[in-house]
Amino acid sequence: MNAIKDILIIGAGPAGITSAVYAARKGLSLCIVSKDIGGQAAWSSNIENYTGYQFITGPDLVQKFRNHLEQYKFDILEGMEVVKVEKKEKGFKALLSNGEIIEAKTIIVASGKKPKTLNVPRENEFTGKGVAYCTTCDAPVFAGKNTAVVGGGNSALDAAISLAKISPKVYIINIADKLTGDTVMIEKIKQFSNVEILNDAKTIEIFGDKFVEGMKVLAYGGERLLSVEGIFVEIGLMPNSDFIDCVEKNDIGEINVNCGSATSCPGIFAAGDVTSIPDKQIIIAAGEGSKAALAAYRYLTIKRE
Amino acid sequence: MNAIKDILIIGAGPAGITSAVYAARKGLSLCIVSKDIGGQAAWSSNIENYTGYQFITGPDLVQKFRNHLEQYKFDILEGMEVVKVEKKEKGFKALLSNGEIIEAKTIIVASGKKPKTLNVPRENEFTGKGVAYCTTCDAPVFAGKNTAVVGGGNSALDAAISLAKISPKVYIINIADKLTGDTVMIEKIKQFSNVEILNDAKTIEIFGDKFVEGMKVLAYGGERLLSVEGIFVEIGLMPNSDFIDCVEKNDIGEINVNCGSATSCPGIFAAGDVTSIPDKQIIIAAGEGSKAALAAYRYLTIKRE
Repeated sequence: MNAIKDILIIGAGPAGITSAVYAARKGLSLCIVSKDIGGQAAWSSNIENYTGYQFITGPDLVQKFRNHLEQYKFDILEGMEVVKVEKKEKGFKALLSNGEIIEAKTIIVASGKKPKTLNVPRENEFTGKGVAYCTTCDAPVFAGKNTAVVGGGNSALDAAISLAKISPKVYIINIADKLTGDTVMIEKIKQFSNVEILNDAKTIEIFGDKFVEGMKVLAYGGERLLSVEGIFVEIGLMPNSDFIDCVEKNDIGEINVNCGSATSCPGIFAAGDVTSIPDKQIIIAAGEGSKAALAAYRYLTIKRE
Repeated sequence: MNAIKDILIIGAGPAGITSAVYAARKGLSLCIVSKDIGGQAAWSSNIENYTGYQFITGPDLVQKFRNHLEQYKFDILEGMEVVKVEKKEKGFKALLSNGEIIEAKTIIVASGKKPKTLNVPRENEFTGKGVAYCTTCDAPVFAGKNTAVVGGGNSALDAAISLAKISPKVYIINIADKLTGDTVMIEKIKQFSNVEILNDAKTIEIFGDKFVEGMKVLAYGGERLLSVEGIFVEIGLMPNSDFIDCVEKNDIGEINVNCGSATSCPGIFAAGDVTSIPDKQIIIAAGEGSKAALAAYRYLTIKRE
């Protein structure tokens, strides 16, 4: 059994890393548990909107985050997941995937989201090489190239609108028989003559050599080969929040936070994509992580000092 | 008269710059008006908590922000201030300090805060060379060195507590006859044997060669020379929000925003230190700037498209 930590941080994406840096600088004892370092940022092929870096790849930014983390001394349990959080009389107890138990006075949940994947052949292999899960991050890289968006809801339409301004041809691969986004978005997308909507359409395969060169789609009962270099998968994200029950969540499982990163459970804070904050961006997650650490510090200071 | 912009961004600190990058990437037309580039970040001697940079000076980080900005095409009116914002039937009109008028459909107020200064000789000269206005940012740099905090409220006591853990000697220079912070904070500070509180004390002068070496204080009616290398001025900050009346502000003049950066006036968004968001940090301001730009983008998309 470890000593009781001031803070347990769950997740080491931009939110978790930033909260760790802030907590360490406040002199708090802490422990990070995460299955990886970098979170979704690590998958992004190109990042041009993290203020201060004009152009950096996801893996490079994550390396910079990792270097930053290494300036501070605390335990990072990488490759592990929290499977259950329990509230105790004082503080909290977390059960890890290896059976270990960690006790902490406060918790920062920064466990992020995972996009739903297509589950088609070679999707994993091409992630970051043409297959992307964040249009705001990656769209500008595909200027002048044919692209496809998989999905039919608002996020897919938003992605398609962004792409239609820079791509000669944008396919929308929608599994339903009509688009499910807001009317205003659907009307907007129909104004672009370079957007082709395939309803009742299912992605079968992605192909290419080192980078994506196209995809095979089953649409209207027949197979079509689409020549695209970018495939944006916008079929939704799932918050990684199943392991915690003692906080309020919204109807899609995101942890509700107030503007100061507090959850409904005193002593538990949350930051980044796992929360109800609407925009999912690296710089926003980092800012929220900082807020969460400072809020946890105040909580600990008031309680203990 | 210029063409009507999609967004007028007031201020070019971390919040304003990040919102400009996001807005430009969304293809919006925009204009930034700011008296400088970098805002308060430019004064910080050392920044160790901007995730991704382990150690960077304020001016260097600001240069990186400026380089980032220059990747995008839009007007930056540097060296100018907005003196008045008016709501029109559609959109807004801003009067600049040079008499120019800018019209925009939305506004992002990112005009920041200015710390109240001591107004003593050589204070400006030593800013960033021992005189600091942000303890969270700069305290770790003064580990092992004698320091002083000017102020007697919570932010001064919070600064002194942080410093007391790393400085051999911390002076609190308090102009009132007793500390004005919360009791719990005052009790806490009294537990540190290395903290000396000077009440009824006024800073007269700061001295040193290239960096701060000490300060002259008038306390209890007599002059004292204190040998310190760091002087943290914590006598309060003023939001730069006088030029705008059509948004709700809190009792210290900060613009009230919701978690999505919206103000009480539709079409006006605000981000960073000028807002009611409690923690004032570069990474938080950058995140809030991103939120504000994405919120403005949605506002414009719904209104126009």
